[in-house]
Amino acid sequence: MKIGIIGIGLIGGSLAIELKKTIKDVKVFGNDSSKVNLKLSLDADLIDEIISKKEYNNLDVIFLTVPVKEISKQLPEILDLVSSKTLVVDFGSTKANICQVVSNHPKRSQFLATHPIAGTEFSGPLASKENLFNGKVQIICESKKTDSNHLNWALEWFKKIGMIIKEMTPIDHDKHIAYVSHLSHISSIILGQTVLEKEKDESAIFAMAGSGFASTVRLAKSSPETWSSIFEENEKNVLETLTHYLSNLEKFKSLLEKKKHKEIHKIIEKTNAIKGILKEIKN
Amino acid sequence: MKIGIIGIGLIGGSLAIELKKTIKDVKVFGNDSSKVNLKLSLDADLIDEIISKKEYNNLDVIFLTVPVKEISKQLPEILDLVSSKTLVVDFGSTKANICQVVSNHPKRSQFLATHPIAGTEFSGPLASKENLFNGKVQIICESKKTDSNHLNWALEWFKKIGMIIKEMTPIDHDKHIAYVSHLSHISSIILGQTVLEKEKDESAIFAMAGSGFASTVRLAKSSPETWSSIFEENEKNVLETLTHYLSNLEKFKSLLEKKKHKEIHKIIEKTNAIKGILKEIKN
Repeated sequence: MKIGIIGIGLIGGSLAIELKKTIKDVKVFGNDSSKVNLKLSLDADLIDEIISKKEYNNLDVIFLTVPVKEISKQLPEILDLVSSKTLVVDFGSTKANICQVVSNHPKRSQFLATHPIAGTEFSGPLASKENLFNGKVQIICESKKTDSNHLNWALEWFKKIGMIIKEMTPIDHDKHIAYVSHLSHISSIILGQTVLEKEKDESAIFAMAGSGFASTVRLAKSSPETWSSIFEENEKNVLETLTHYLSNLEKFKSLLEKKKHKEIHKIIEKTNAIKGILKEIKN
Repeated sequence: MKIGIIGIGLIGGSLAIELKKTIKDVKVFGNDSSKVNLKLSLDADLIDEIISKKEYNNLDVIFLTVPVKEISKQLPEILDLVSSKTLVVDFGSTKANICQVVSNHPKRSQFLATHPIAGTEFSGPLASKENLFNGKVQIICESKKTDSNHLNWALEWFKKIGMIIKEMTPIDHDKHIAYVSHLSHISSIILGQTVLEKEKDESAIFAMAGSGFASTVRLAKSSPETWSSIFEENEKNVLETLTHYLSNLEKFKSLLEKKKHKEIHKIIEKTNAIKGILKEIKN
């Protein structure tokens, strides 16, 4: 079986590891705009060979794991290039625009839209991790538009690597994910920015920062390519969540200014309900 | 040796565990406004006996581990009550006001102000953890105002339980800690609040939230008593950091609205510098 991975970072590389573990006689081909990443992926045996666009029509399956803005741009062209038997799966963190750009493509049935709720704050092929997807949710969208043989193969393989399948509309996906993922990234990145701006002398941070700070600011280590692309692609929903977050922060600030400490106590107490939800998250 | 712990939650209880581990023939006395906490602490052998205010003058050392606003309120009275040989140590997360309220107290030399950079998002006596302080920074303030025998005993004991001592002025402490701890808590609590408000149907969160969300929102589980008290006690600095954070969030929002994605890319790239700092944090 010939499988191509376009974009070999954390997700693409980790998929390559699982492909080689689970599919006998698989040959993994890679393409990436970065020659360094391609070299690293070959050296680390994540991919067996580099592949050029012209050869995409020889592949059985293509996994598209570039930044989301690039997925929207490249996906129609990739569908143009592939054979009538190739399945193309994207793994982007946004879904509405990606599904939209191929909604009328003649090879729409050869495409499956997915978003694995898996990752770390690290990026690049060397961040690839075995079992990254084990026990994690794989969101799929518009699965009825995918040819049933292609769909079955994909779902079977996702289950084989330990994923839990959930179906969702692209619109719902982008709306919800803005809250539970994109907003977390913004709050964390801007926290990092704010502290770095203030604490020019880093020794104060070293001395005083504890595990709470480390946890809250962890996502500020995320890839600029991946995340500026996600914020662009999901702009409307991200702006809505950010406006909501800002409004709650302004209210909190106003309560503090007015010395309404009991109100602040109530907000924290109510928000403690997050405990029950966090228990359910597959880490 | 008779040691009293006033306020037996995560910090008080974890100190009790270390006292019993490291000091031969220690007897640990406890006081807490919550009868439930006292009962739990006795049952869990964190304390040996309950003690009333009237008996504070029999103690060699008092560890004061109530919420910071309570420390400022109770500390002068506790110093009034204790014998001329008792050392009183506070472990509050703010330092300026606490040091201020006893600056002219006749027993000022019997007091040591500290802030251990240790904790978890859990609270109450049953959250107590062995080795919680091992490898963590213990910030001390105005140590020259503490009697040298008392100071030496305290520093030796902190080192014995694995802590790394750093001295800082109360003013500097409160200014820096607002950035690297108090702001993290606000950003996390308000993130939790915002997502809970939006996602009334929790199943969407269960399905879509990953480890990034869990990490960023972890501090939203923190104790309302502890944290509303800290925000009140460090109001001026907290408002300053919050204003700075809000301004950066507004700038980010404006860049998103104006589709200045390259600028957003730059902010994330620059903030990635936090990687080096996080490596140094003792978790």
